[in-house]
Order: sequence, then C-alpha cells, then structure tokens
Amino acid sequence: MAEKVRVLLVGSGGIGTMTALNLEQGGHAAVSAVLRSNYAAVKEKGFTIDSCDHGKLDGWRPAEILNKVPDVASDPSVMPFDYIICTTKNIPDVPPVLVDIIRPAVTPGKSVILLIQNGLNIEKPLHKEFPTNIVLSGVSFMGADELSPGHVLENDTDRLSVGPFFNPALDIEAQIAAAEHFVKIYSATGKVQCSYDRDVQFIRWRKLLYNAVWNPICAITGMDTTRLRLASEVDDPASPLNVLVRPAMNEVRAAAKAVADVELPESLVEVMVDADPLEIWCAPSMMQDTRKKRFIEYEYLVGEALRAGEGAGVAMPTLRCIYGFCKAVQWRTKEYNGLVDPQKLMEERKKTQG
Amino acid sequence: MAEKVRVLLVGSGGIGTMTALNLEQGGHAAVSAVLRSNYAAVKEKGFTIDSCDHGKLDGWRPAEILNKVPDVASDPSVMPFDYIICTTKNIPDVPPVLVDIIRPAVTPGKSVILLIQNGLNIEKPLHKEFPTNIVLSGVSFMGADELSPGHVLENDTDRLSVGPFFNPALDIEAQIAAAEHFVKIYSATGKVQCSYDRDVQFIRWRKLLYNAVWNPICAITGMDTTRLRLASEVDDPASPLNVLVRPAMNEVRAAAKAVADVELPESLVEVMVDADPLEIWCAPSMMQDTRKKRFIEYEYLVGEALRAGEGAGVAMPTLRCIYGFCKAVQWRTKEYNGLVDPQKLMEERKKTQG
Repeated sequence: MAEKVRVLLVGSGGIGTMTALNLEQGGHAAVSAVLRSNYAAVKEKGFTIDSCDHGKLDGWRPAEILNKVPDVASDPSVMPFDYIICTTKNIPDVPPVLVDIIRPAVTPGKSVILLIQNGLNIEKPLHKEFPTNIVLSGVSFMGADELSPGHVLENDTDRLSVGPFFNPALDIEAQIAAAEHFVKIYSATGKVQCSYDRDVQFIRWRKLLYNAVWNPICAITGMDTTRLRLASEVDDPASPLNVLVRPAMNEVRAAAKAVADVELPESLVEVMVDADPLEIWCAPSMMQDTRKKRFIEYEYLVGEALRAGEGAGVAMPTLRCIYGFCKAVQWRTKEYNGLVDPQKLMEERKKTQG
Repeated sequence: MAEKVRVLLVGSGGIGTMTALNLEQGGHAAVSAVLRSNYAAVKEKGFTIDSCDHGKLDGWRPAEILNKVPDVASDPSVMPFDYIICTTKNIPDVPPVLVDIIRPAVTPGKSVILLIQNGLNIEKPLHKEFPTNIVLSGVSFMGADELSPGHVLENDTDRLSVGPFFNPALDIEAQIAAAEHFVKIYSATGKVQCSYDRDVQFIRWRKLLYNAVWNPICAITGMDTTRLRLASEVDDPASPLNVLVRPAMNEVRAAAKAVADVELPESLVEVMVDADPLEIWCAPSMMQDTRKKRFIEYEYLVGEALRAGEGAGVAMPTLRCIYGFCKAVQWRTKEYNGLVDPQKLMEERKKTQG
C-alpha cells in the first residue's frame, strides 16, 4: 500500500464527508469529493467538522474538490479511480439514477464501486450497467449530519460493515479481496470500526427491519419515533405501534427468511421498536426528507422488500399499505418540485375517461 | 301540524344552517340554533346564504340564535324540544362527546334526536344515555360549506335520507312515526328531496364505502381525490388506488355483508373510486379538517367499520393500517391543540421503562 488509492466520493453530506475524512486520515487514500449544494462553501473555506471519532477540524479539505463527476473515459487528464464510493440518496424513481450519475467515472474492470446506502437490491442496476466492476455493500451505523453547507457534526461513532455484492460473472476471490482491501485502508486510522462481512444480506435485512418501517411511517405521519410511541397507549391493541410498526416489522422478518434465508429473531422487533432513546425525538432520514420536501428512498427501503417478500409468497399487507402511502407522498414531492403537472395530467386523464 | 314543532339544531355550519333554513321555510318548525364560532357574526347580521335550493338570502335568522345548548331540565322558561338535530362533527375520542353536549336539552321520552352525521354505530352512545328517546339516522348528500362566519354556500342540492336507529326497548311504530313525521315537515318546502328509509344500514354502509376510504387517505397524504388518482398510473398494480383505495373499499364491502347483511355490489367500488369529478380536486371533509389542524371523525368513519368487520371475522388489513395512521394523525392534532404534552408523556414513559 505504498501508493495511495484513488477514491471518488459521490455524495458529500454528513456520512460521505466523514467517510472521506477517515480514509484520508488513514494515509492510504486520496479522495476526490464531488460536491453539489455545498461546493461553493467548501471550495472557499473547506469543511468544518465536529467529530466524535476525529475531533474538531476547521478548513479540512479532501485531496480534490469537484463540482461534477469527472469523465474518465473522455478526459485523459483524469486518472482512473480505484474506488467509487456512493453515499448519495438512492432514488430510482426520480432521474438521474445512480448508474447515470457515476457512469462517466467508472473505468470498466477496474473501479470498485462501494455503495454506502441502505435498502435491498441496490446492487442490481450496477451489476447490469457495469458488469465488469466489483460492487461492494457498505452498511453504516455512523450518526452524522451536515448542519449547514460544509459544517458536519458526527455524534455517533463510525461503524462500517463492508462485503461484496457477489456478481457470479466475476471472480469470487477478487470480489472478496476488494472488500478486504477496503476494510484495511478504512481501518488504518484505528479510530473507527470497519469490519469485513462476507454475508452482507443478514446485516442489510436487519437494518431494513428499522428502515422499511420507522422511516416511512414517520415520513407519512410527520411524527418522530418518540411521538409515535407516545401516541400508542401501552394497552391499546389498535395503537400505531400494534397496527403499523410491529406488524410491518414482522412482515419484513418473514420476507428476510423467505427471500434470503436470513433469520431475524422475533425479539429483534422490540429492540427495533425501542431502538431510539425516547429523549432524542428521532426523525429518521425519510422524515427529514419529507420535511425538506425532498424525495424519499422508499423504493429501495420499502418497495424492494415488498416485491421480494411477496414474490417469495410472504403476505405483507401492512408494508403494502405503507408502500402505497409512500408512493403518494413521493408524487406530492414531485408536484412540489415541478416534476409533474397536475392540471395537464388531469386534462389528459379526462380525455382518456371520456 | 297547526303548531310549529320546536327544533334544536346543534352544529350550525354549512349543512346545519341549510337544514334549519329548509325546516323554517317549510313553515312547520321553529328552529333554535346553537352557534359557536359564528355566533357573534350571525347574532349581528344574520346568515348570508347562497343556495341552489332556496336562492339568495341576506340576513336570514332562525327563530332563535343561542350560544350554548339550553338547559331544559333546570330552566323552566325553556320549552322542551320536539327534535334535536345534530350536525356537528362526531369525535368520540376528544371531549366533550356528543351525548354530553346535548344532554341539557334532551327531555326524556319526548325529544327525538336526529343525527345527520356519517359513520357507523353513532347511535350506540345515544341509546345508552337516552334510553327513552327515539334516535333517527340522517344521511345527507347535500353540498354546503360555511365560507366565512355566517356565510353559507350550498352548491349541491339537499337530499336527506331519514330512518330510525331502531331501539328495541322502544315502541317500533313510534320510532317509524317519528321518522315519517320528520320527513313530512322537512319535505314541506317542496325544494329538497327527503325520503323515509326504513333500513338505514344500507345507505349508511354505502356512504361508508367512500367515507371510510377516501376521507382518511386524503387526510393522511394531504392529497385530494384527483391527485391520488393522478398519482396512480393506470397500469401500475402497486399504485395508491390499487394498494390502498380499492382494497380498503372491498374490505368495507365485505364488512357490510358480514355485519349488516348489506350487499354492496362490486361495481360500486369503481363508482366510488371515480365519484368526484376530476376537475373539482375534491378535498374530503377529513382532509379539510387536518388542513385546519382540526380533529378528524376517524373513529366513526374508520374505527367502527374496522371493529365491526373484524368482529364478524372479516380480514381488513388495509383499513387497519389506515386506522393506525389516523390515530397517529389525531394525536398530532391533539399535540397541536395542547391536549397532550409530549415532554411530560416522554418523561413518564421513560420512568415506566426504566
């Protein structure tokens, strides 16, 4: 590991920035970070970081600050990337989709793509579009937010689980080696917990138990996990917890077993119900997105779990409803952002009906 | 019918005011209307009414304008009421409940109580609290809104279906006679359609097909019925219409059959899906309530249908979810209106857990 590996980071919000910082602090990676909303601020002053793992940094800059994904194929001045780390939101129902975003930077057969993103089947479009590139799964348990452009607070320590999204068309050992290599360079600071995980399905489904349930329910109701628990009287069989949260979690458990032979113990449901300390009034990311009128990652967090589970014969009536509400919420956001025109659609629909 | 019957109207919004007007115009009733938010405006200037049935009226006043429900038992100057008509929202989970509101005005054995309200089992608390009083069902298909205090627009003609909520402890013929008498005095203007309906269950369940489904789904998503239809691609099996609206309606159909032997044909589902003309962007009442941060009538529109249906062995997974979301939405409104204190509840919950 004499020479630094070249890393492209796509998505430099809270988690992305902390990931870049830890990689560079480890000394084995040079990170080119693609910035969007915070580009001007960071270009001028660097990042201001308050990190439980790395302390306080003022004016920190990764090796390179970019305002777009570089075009490796057509620009010979850009050296190929060893790793492309994606920490953006992953929203397949709103263009541009992830594969189109990163395509210019992907060197076939070389760039290893690491998706630090939640949800199910997120690797499928990448295996299809980049059949010669290794794709890795990253599941992060860090707590980090960008409070204002370029100002990142990390308040819960970085724990990252990495393993291959196995592509049967590629050499298995090479895929394992790529994951292990990343774990090595990421662990070099000694300040974070990064583990190699050969079977990524367990940890992905386990996290989905929370993400496929709390995320959309909070987004739909506009209530944080504390309020939803308080709104549920302990002895009410028809409380939101008993009618929505617990049944949906048990449906995801059943899907995990049927789809991936992943055994999530029943006791895990109560762990996930009470995962957030009551006093933090936790607003899951999807709820924060709806508050900001941003698109939600419901297809990979809810839709894929639903399709996979139902495809394997699991009844998922609660998750189905949650999915339907998410689809409506996403449309509302599309209208807000001008991606659909209700008046025009209404007139077209009237013609079709008439 | 020489002498006018004495009517107390509780709930003088759009529908209540039009009901009072039609009764008085018929010449057989003197209406004492209890007003709340519009009391000052109406006391001073009367109602301004723009009605498709009765034309334009400026400064119209019912026989009596009250700012509270009169106390018949303790105030000998108040003559007993022949009819007490309730057109308020009916929200059993937020005090004061309807029976407590009207109690002072109910003369046992005499006052006939007419509930012009939607939903299921709304008569139960009245039969219990007023066991000697006849209770009638009123189902209204009028379109009327109070646009500002005292200003009412009626834009869809008054059609009212009236029949007894049979109380087996009372004389059956007397209950029928009371309903028929009301139909007679209400029909006297010749300008509205008021029919006697012996079997009120059919019409109540039929209306519930719309109200138990569109009302809460629009309230939860903040989207009107047009937008929810536009958000549903015609060929998408997982659209909001296909995942939420149609399944919920079919569950209500099944409950109607199992609970009340009411046969609602399957074709009625599509009628209800497309009940609202697309170009009116219909915001059902429950959605208007959430917009105004008011409480929603979800217990009688959704909860009772769910409990009755499930009690009769009908699987209602979609309505169950909708109910759970409604309960959360109601709690949010309680917080907004200061009826629950999250901080205090959170601290109590922490103690219980610890």
